[in-house]
Amino acid sequence: MNASRWRISPPPCRCSGACWPPGPDAVSADGLELFADLYEFRMAHAYHALGMEEEAVFSLFVRRLPAGRNFLLACGAEDFCDTLEALRFGGDSLAYLRGLGAFPEEFLAWLARLRFSGAVHAVPEGTPVFAGEPLIEVVAPIAEAQLLETLAMNMVGLQTLLASKAARVVAAAAGRPVVEFGSRRAQGIDAALAGARAFHLAGVAATSNVLAGARHGIPVAGTMAHSFVQAFAREADAFRAFAHHYPETILLVDTYDTAAGVRRVVELARELGAAFRVRGIRLDSGDLAALARQARGILDHAGLTQVQIFASGGLDEHRIAALLAAGAPIDAFGVGTEMSVSGDAPALDIAYKLTAYAGQGRMKLSEGKRTLPGRKQVFRTATGDTVALAGEDLPGEPLLRQVMAGGRRAAPRPPLATSRQNAAERIAALPAPLRALAPATPPYPVAISPALAAEEGQVRARLSAANLPPRPVG
Amino acid sequence: MNASRWRISPPPCRCSGACWPPGPDAVSADGLELFADLYEFRMAHAYHALGMEEEAVFSLFVRRLPAGRNFLLACGAEDFCDTLEALRFGGDSLAYLRGLGAFPEEFLAWLARLRFSGAVHAVPEGTPVFAGEPLIEVVAPIAEAQLLETLAMNMVGLQTLLASKAARVVAAAAGRPVVEFGSRRAQGIDAALAGARAFHLAGVAATSNVLAGARHGIPVAGTMAHSFVQAFAREADAFRAFAHHYPETILLVDTYDTAAGVRRVVELARELGAAFRVRGIRLDSGDLAALARQARGILDHAGLTQVQIFASGGLDEHRIAALLAAGAPIDAFGVGTEMSVSGDAPALDIAYKLTAYAGQGRMKLSEGKRTLPGRKQVFRTATGDTVALAGEDLPGEPLLRQVMAGGRRAAPRPPLATSRQNAAERIAALPAPLRALAPATPPYPVAISPALAAEEGQVRARLSAANLPPRPVG
Repeated sequence: MNASRWRISPPPCRCSGACWPPGPDAVSADGLELFADLYEFRMAHAYHALGMEEEAVFSLFVRRLPAGRNFLLACGAEDFCDTLEALRFGGDSLAYLRGLGAFPEEFLAWLARLRFSGAVHAVPEGTPVFAGEPLIEVVAPIAEAQLLETLAMNMVGLQTLLASKAARVVAAAAGRPVVEFGSRRAQGIDAALAGARAFHLAGVAATSNVLAGARHGIPVAGTMAHSFVQAFAREADAFRAFAHHYPETILLVDTYDTAAGVRRVVELARELGAAFRVRGIRLDSGDLAALARQARGILDHAGLTQVQIFASGGLDEHRIAALLAAGAPIDAFGVGTEMSVSGDAPALDIAYKLTAYAGQGRMKLSEGKRTLPGRKQVFRTATGDTVALAGEDLPGEPLLRQVMAGGRRAAPRPPLATSRQNAAERIAALPAPLRALAPATPPYPVAISPALAAEEGQVRARLSAANLPPRPVG
Repeated sequence: MNASRWRISPPPCRCSGACWPPGPDAVSADGLELFADLYEFRMAHAYHALGMEEEAVFSLFVRRLPAGRNFLLACGAEDFCDTLEALRFGGDSLAYLRGLGAFPEEFLAWLARLRFSGAVHAVPEGTPVFAGEPLIEVVAPIAEAQLLETLAMNMVGLQTLLASKAARVVAAAAGRPVVEFGSRRAQGIDAALAGARAFHLAGVAATSNVLAGARHGIPVAGTMAHSFVQAFAREADAFRAFAHHYPETILLVDTYDTAAGVRRVVELARELGAAFRVRGIRLDSGDLAALARQARGILDHAGLTQVQIFASGGLDEHRIAALLAAGAPIDAFGVGTEMSVSGDAPALDIAYKLTAYAGQGRMKLSEGKRTLPGRKQVFRTATGDTVALAGEDLPGEPLLRQVMAGGRRAAPRPPLATSRQNAAERIAALPAPLRALAPATPPYPVAISPALAAEEGQVRARLSAANLPPRPVG
């Protein structure tokens, strides 16, 4: 068997491939209109050709929380809405699709005219959510809504994944500032930039990434790397030079020997006298609790009680909690890799599923992949959540709000600071066991409303009747 | 304590934040010149101000292989070089940096003039590499080279991470095509697009992502989702409609009941007679080995021996190997999440370290963070690798090649197909235990040349002498 048996399309020109990749102009500037799986275009074309233009509801939700997690923090819907509003199929994108030889001109012309025309309902960014609860519901003609599957899952999935991880790190730091410097190990440019935004929303104080600072208005932070120390013959020379340019800096003391590095900071303080304004030292390797205690002792003994201790190096929520539980005198944390890739759970079990078409509830019956039919609402009370049909009026706060109507935003994008405040308030309002790092027992209660359960039963019965196994063949 | 103690810069305007984020024009189009950690700018400024303009060598390498891995597949250097060649500080970027209030105009003027002027040496994409071996060495005035730290680690780290994972998945599939459809769960847009390229380089046949197909000239593949089946009252109607539009398609049979779905494909074959050209069915849930056997039996019994079986759903290299070991009659695999986020190892322990400045070798002495001084070369023979100083002439193939000189590419970017071929040949040339999924015992031998070991000893002695602990204070 070879690849072509599987409908794998070669480059459109059918040459040996030497002409590829195309130049930077072959696809329009950001090209996100093509950020979709090929099957979405195939299905959209079939719907178009069949005249299936009725309204569909697609629901974006997480099937199960990652192991050991108590909640997720919704994030990413605002970027998704911005992208939806701007989505256009330009000539380059259409030319590429044409080159695949899979779509007739009529469908390409439809794409060329396509503007998202539907509605989006979303949980506000910074809201804790649980398994099975819709983060977003898209209501649009089925072909339009289908084309958004990959984009919605990727954007909202990534930011929710990272914000959820960061909420744990921030909780573990127990009020001490957390600065993120994970861009270097993040899974790509977008993960670093969207991640910095998600982290800040979840309570992280600042990012190291300058572009993230510029794009999202997030505070940026950073001082020196080991390389700066190494570029000088003596560590003391590097400290002196850096403090000259940045008097209120933080000096990285572990390039050669941590205790010796701390003593050199003390020497610098003696040398500079009143001009010494170094704010802190950073420990980046070794036994951070022991080194922090030793460093604190050296600094305090020299009268440098105002010099703070910043710790970094392989930290996550559990290591931060352990350091603080051990009484390590650490004033702030730098967190990188583990938060930036959500190391314990690098993906969410997120899904974007058809739940209604042409006014009828739809669902899968596949093993372990339950979907709840229809347009829904989540009602939150002090004692738990209820997932209900959208038309129901139940006690509690309805979490899903309409954010797009007729393809346009129903309200302006909220500032990041507002979403950050929302996150802080809503996380603080969770029951205490939910905010702990350990799994909460019992987990947060999420019920299905009687009306939704009845609808689920009816849809299941209808689907089962319509899809009875054919008589055995053969 | 509050965040401002840690030199966290607020938005430049010092307003409440309501004016942020800036509009899309506030930073230049891709803005990757700002994709750096703030400390890189601070250090670059200090070097600039101190007149430290001599040549530095920075080495990009992975300290340890992820647990259970036998090799990494180098990937990402070509994108890094393209970005380096194009890097410019435009007015928007400079305005943002100016607004931080941390840098004098003189430094900003230097940035405005900055064009990368250095050399890059890289292992060709698709080459297996091991712990401690440089993937890239950058040789440039220290401030220039320092500014590239985050970009180099992120770009080369991500693509190497994902190519390395994909090489295992491809090996497990033992010649059967692997199609990737992980964009939905990839960590962001860039991870999905760069990932599709890395996967294809590592031997994956096709991607589901249309934009990746357009950008990188990768074959694209995909047929239908459950939603298509759900949009029809009866599964049989969905199959008939889809096969009408795409006669040689693959039908997804597990929306309601897998065996019933397969029987409906048989019914469709009877209905269509000679017009039935469906190439395969896809199983996406449940016990794939058992379902594949059952489906094969139903199809073969109906004379549909030409209809192939495509399996997907939570697959990784171990699950694929187990399915094939169990004799599951599966003809091709669709792999998503686990490959797209490198689920077992979502980050590499990658580092970008100063190894020489002003002609002198440099290194860290921090615990567990060994760096090898100087410009280096890796020589590969049939029996193992030797990491050596760049000037040495040892037996074997030198893996690092100069890809940029004087800030320009030393040779054109190779087509992806060439790098893919390189990967296939070089992986095939590895000893068989290295190509297995299980950890090879012993691991691949990587030696340090006597000259490099001697240099390391001398640098260590020099650094230790120059950085003797200061006399105890107090």
